[in-house]
Amino acid sequence: MLDETHDTRLGSWVRSANGHQHFPIQNLPFGVFSPAEGGGARIGVAIGEEVFDLSDAAKLSLLEGLPADIFQQASLEPLMAAGLTTRRQLRKTLSRVLSQEAYADSGARCLRRSVDCEFVVPTTIPDYTDFYAGVYHALAAGKLFRPNEPLLPNYEHLPVGYHGRSSSVIISTADVHRPTGQMNLDQTVQVTKSRKLDFEVEFAIWIGKANERGNPVAIGKASEAVWGYGLLNDWSARDIQAWEYRPLGPFLGKNFATSVSPWVVTPEALAPFRTASFDKGHAVSAYLSDEHDGSSGGLDVILEVLLSTDASREAGLSRFSLANMSTRYLYWTPAQLVAHHTVGGCPLRVGDLLGTGTISGPSSGEEGSLLEATKNGVKPLVLPNGEWRAFLNDGDEVTIRGICEREGAVTIGFGECTGRICD
Amino acid sequence: MLDETHDTRLGSWVRSANGHQHFPIQNLPFGVFSPAEGGGARIGVAIGEEVFDLSDAAKLSLLEGLPADIFQQASLEPLMAAGLTTRRQLRKTLSRVLSQEAYADSGARCLRRSVDCEFVVPTTIPDYTDFYAGVYHALAAGKLFRPNEPLLPNYEHLPVGYHGRSSSVIISTADVHRPTGQMNLDQTVQVTKSRKLDFEVEFAIWIGKANERGNPVAIGKASEAVWGYGLLNDWSARDIQAWEYRPLGPFLGKNFATSVSPWVVTPEALAPFRTASFDKGHAVSAYLSDEHDGSSGGLDVILEVLLSTDASREAGLSRFSLANMSTRYLYWTPAQLVAHHTVGGCPLRVGDLLGTGTISGPSSGEEGSLLEATKNGVKPLVLPNGEWRAFLNDGDEVTIRGICEREGAVTIGFGECTGRICD
Repeated sequence: MLDETHDTRLGSWVRSANGHQHFPIQNLPFGVFSPAEGGGARIGVAIGEEVFDLSDAAKLSLLEGLPADIFQQASLEPLMAAGLTTRRQLRKTLSRVLSQEAYADSGARCLRRSVDCEFVVPTTIPDYTDFYAGVYHALAAGKLFRPNEPLLPNYEHLPVGYHGRSSSVIISTADVHRPTGQMNLDQTVQVTKSRKLDFEVEFAIWIGKANERGNPVAIGKASEAVWGYGLLNDWSARDIQAWEYRPLGPFLGKNFATSVSPWVVTPEALAPFRTASFDKGHAVSAYLSDEHDGSSGGLDVILEVLLSTDASREAGLSRFSLANMSTRYLYWTPAQLVAHHTVGGCPLRVGDLLGTGTISGPSSGEEGSLLEATKNGVKPLVLPNGEWRAFLNDGDEVTIRGICEREGAVTIGFGECTGRICD
Repeated sequence: MLDETHDTRLGSWVRSANGHQHFPIQNLPFGVFSPAEGGGARIGVAIGEEVFDLSDAAKLSLLEGLPADIFQQASLEPLMAAGLTTRRQLRKTLSRVLSQEAYADSGARCLRRSVDCEFVVPTTIPDYTDFYAGVYHALAAGKLFRPNEPLLPNYEHLPVGYHGRSSSVIISTADVHRPTGQMNLDQTVQVTKSRKLDFEVEFAIWIGKANERGNPVAIGKASEAVWGYGLLNDWSARDIQAWEYRPLGPFLGKNFATSVSPWVVTPEALAPFRTASFDKGHAVSAYLSDEHDGSSGGLDVILEVLLSTDASREAGLSRFSLANMSTRYLYWTPAQLVAHHTVGGCPLRVGDLLGTGTISGPSSGEEGSLLEATKNGVKPLVLPNGEWRAFLNDGDEVTIRGICEREGAVTIGFGECTGRICD
């Protein structure tokens, strides 16, 4: 599956791309942005510190017959709907155009500085689903609430998931308003601002292929439904959630905001970073089982969560690293999530978003939420500047980063998914 | 709030409307349909056995300056977004056009026989939320699974709800495929077709007004967010749901199909049928409390669920009436559902769908699901033709009807929400 686009020797005439930790020419993730000078939302590709404007590139005939109007869109959906072959060909074209000096003059006319661009959520998100596939998170959260039965009996047999709220998905850097909600404090029902506002480090899966109602996606075809990947922060109000969630699951505790990163990293870019799926030590149902998937169905993306506070920014301090974890800790592969989601005939649509669920590692320093890191607020974290946190304060800015590193491959990244708490 | 459109003496030159149980001229519900002769989806109004084509009517200048393109749409959303005043004016115009003989000649050119039309889901449903507001259902279902605590402590304080799957919402008459899923049978994990397929009688609320993220809709303004009402069948696979639902709620047990009725009945049409909200016997949080709402926040829609089977249809039998219930049995009013949904800042969008949750009455013969009527399959129903049902068989067709009756008002109805189980 590796080809010339993964060649470690490949460089770009976009100088900032060479050696860039996230967006070297081996990555080429897609996103939707509005340039500072106006002209409306369109699709671009990240290359170093620049965005390569695909609408402009198509107009300059750099994209081999792909029409400009597929890129002059406020959503990736039309490009996604053009299919797998189009995505792969486009990647090869972009790799050539952005590497060969012959294209440097015309290509440079399509570059925008990333810092000047405004990004939007990459699709309209017809539906958003959130899973619970981070097994160490499920174990740790389960221990807090059900010490005798941290993992429920279904956990090792199927991907537990629930439907999220599409309207509340926001782009990285958008502010997160602290929600007001009803909660039960000291056995009294109260309505107040959440005092247990938390982040959840998740991985995002963007669906690019629809299935008809009543037609499940077979596990062997499920990877083809995934158009790309990103980072996701499933902001959670623990006090609201704790009171509302029985018996139908999370609702207002989640639907005030979910942040996603702007760049959608393709399966082609991630090909060097496939890994074995999580070793479950037991067989799973046939519809979730795939020999090939077993050996290379997983992904190894190193995630990091960082925090800055009002005080830390005033003091000019760097962001504090709170935890590291990896998508290797997901109990189910993206293909398994798709196969499960559709086994009863549920239709996925182009542009749908799946969250994996919070990802934590098995060790201290690998917690994907403050719930876990502070034992539900009981053991506050002490930050390097002496502040402590049980949960998030107003002004706190949480950033998730994702990086893929492997010997023999060029390091690529997902950029950042960030959001700041405001009143 | 009653005006000349509710006048009991008002008749229509569309003869089938006069005395029609569902669609007399006092109702005038909106829907989206495609005429048999082609020409694409557009908006219509039900009048007796006919559909009044609003796209044609606008072209004939019958609608007082409203442009035809707002009606030549596959969705009600543009009309909804035109706002409350437009809806009310349009109702008055339609009442005049469809009642006065002077319009009979030109108006007749806009009529299509309902039976010849193909209906579609009335909006794109940006998001679908399902509540649990039927208190007698919550009590009955709770008794089955938690005999010692049928109503959880939060139930009487807030509307419990969860996010549903927009992509799985289908129009009345569309077939319902029996889902395959993983379940735990006799302590063995199995993947098989659901054997506990059920209906759930619900009331549908169509949202016509958006709120920005972070801006709750105050209870006093919440009724204005509702553009109309319909019928909803939240098909449920009890065996799939029972295994998957802990700890995050229903997922594949629900997202294979949810049926909605085609006609959206407006708040204006329902004005004569407002009723007091459910008497809770205790105060609720201020954001859910509204004096006005307390006296007239509820609705009295009589619902009925009917069943036909392969055998009953072959024998030429009428549909069997399984149960009757009323929206009076909803613990929370539509305005309370909207206020709660947005109190944490969650954005509603134009075209969103809210289900109320299953509606049952307190007595036998008022069960809104087979789960309740058969005690989770333990006490099968015996049908009038001698068949028995623990849950639904293939070929079973379930129909929900809704009617509003009150002395001094013309009876209006919601039509039907129907679906047949297929393999």
